[in-house]
Amino acid sequence: MENQRPLILISNDDGIIAKGISELIKFLRPLGEIVVMAPDAPRSGNACALTVTEPIHYQLLRKDVGLTVYKCSGTPADCVKLAFHTVLDRKPDLVVGGINHGDNSSVNVHYSGTMGVVIEGCLKGVSSIGFSLCNHAPDADFEPAGEYIREIARKVLEKGLPPLTCLNVNFPDTKELKGVKICEQAKGQWTNEWENFAHRGDAHYYWLTGEFEESEKENEKSDHWALANGYVAVTPTTVDVTAYGLMDELKTWF
Amino acid sequence: MENQRPLILISNDDGIIAKGISELIKFLRPLGEIVVMAPDAPRSGNACALTVTEPIHYQLLRKDVGLTVYKCSGTPADCVKLAFHTVLDRKPDLVVGGINHGDNSSVNVHYSGTMGVVIEGCLKGVSSIGFSLCNHAPDADFEPAGEYIREIARKVLEKGLPPLTCLNVNFPDTKELKGVKICEQAKGQWTNEWENFAHRGDAHYYWLTGEFEESEKENEKSDHWALANGYVAVTPTTVDVTAYGLMDELKTWF
Repeated sequence: MENQRPLILISNDDGIIAKGISELIKFLRPLGEIVVMAPDAPRSGNACALTVTEPIHYQLLRKDVGLTVYKCSGTPADCVKLAFHTVLDRKPDLVVGGINHGDNSSVNVHYSGTMGVVIEGCLKGVSSIGFSLCNHAPDADFEPAGEYIREIARKVLEKGLPPLTCLNVNFPDTKELKGVKICEQAKGQWTNEWENFAHRGDAHYYWLTGEFEESEKENEKSDHWALANGYVAVTPTTVDVTAYGLMDELKTWF
Repeated sequence: MENQRPLILISNDDGIIAKGISELIKFLRPLGEIVVMAPDAPRSGNACALTVTEPIHYQLLRKDVGLTVYKCSGTPADCVKLAFHTVLDRKPDLVVGGINHGDNSSVNVHYSGTMGVVIEGCLKGVSSIGFSLCNHAPDADFEPAGEYIREIARKVLEKGLPPLTCLNVNFPDTKELKGVKICEQAKGQWTNEWENFAHRGDAHYYWLTGEFEESEKENEKSDHWALANGYVAVTPTTVDVTAYGLMDELKTWF
């Protein structure tokens, strides 16, 4: 029966018109019934932000057999929360964010609206996956990622992910993918993050930019290493951010 | 010498005019030289969001001995990044977010702009602490938290926090604080998250609201238990969100 196929909720942060989300829908459609609730405009760098100072709204864009598409005025995390509250008639089997136009590996997980979708899905107790391609171009080629995306989603639907965990999957921008590598988040930090521009003689305008300085370049376990070497980087990610290892030490402080 | 006192960067998400940040400045001023870079308006629920689609700017508001205050048009995380890039003449010894008007315990860590400040400070390699009070009122009473805030900040300045870890400190709204409890993030989820309003006959407007459903109510290790029982909840928090425990299992999947 139609309503017993897996239910998959899709959102992103590049907005409903991005190529990446269209490609994701195409890749995942064979796996189940798809509901899309995506931002009506780009929301890159939105992290898990929520809209708290104004109301949000959504609108039906398309309804076909097995595919229903809505756009929403909120953030990526809002989209997931609102879909659960309004348009989903049952708990989905999978929440998927992406495919992001750009890298969400390493510390970018903290800023990514794509991962905002995924973290929200995970917090709602649903297996969740974020997919990102290391290419910001609007016409980036997502095709080489397609079979991996379908395979990873199929595995997660079949086996499920443990509570409070989700997957952050990043693809290098190459046609020659070497396979999947299970990774840890690369350590390092962004530097030279602002470019200063003058506007009408006032030079106090700053645009975000930056370079990433990796602290463990030779760490073959890191997602950066995997991406630099042609692998699909699958980084298991937790939403329980308690630093358990620090608890005993802190207890001696107070 | 003045410039050898600890340098403390403060920001928040309620904005520069909030009572909470004024109180935080007052409590921490005895500990070192304070630089404030805070949003020019409320930015609650901003998480680690960054401003990527427009430039941001900042402005000096006040310069006294040991205290310099700027406001910034960006998000809480932007404020930290921009302060490091522009106004700080050396790496700070401490980054502090707050005092937030409202609870940032449990899963709220993911949505909190206050914790956005703290996570950004931590990613920059500086010991960082977020302080929040379980009271949303603009005129909330932060006074009982004062001595704890100073003591916790002093300890962190003295001992430092390990790399990739920071503190999320929440205060119950009481004058009778029972002491510090080292906690883990309470598990659970938000439900009934949207309130539906009609505007000009169109009922598709949703305001964020909700109730938190805790899954382990009797867990005496959780920050919720500590807050419900009158303790200051100190939750060590990691910015390395790799789910290390899941890596071996995932390796068998592919």
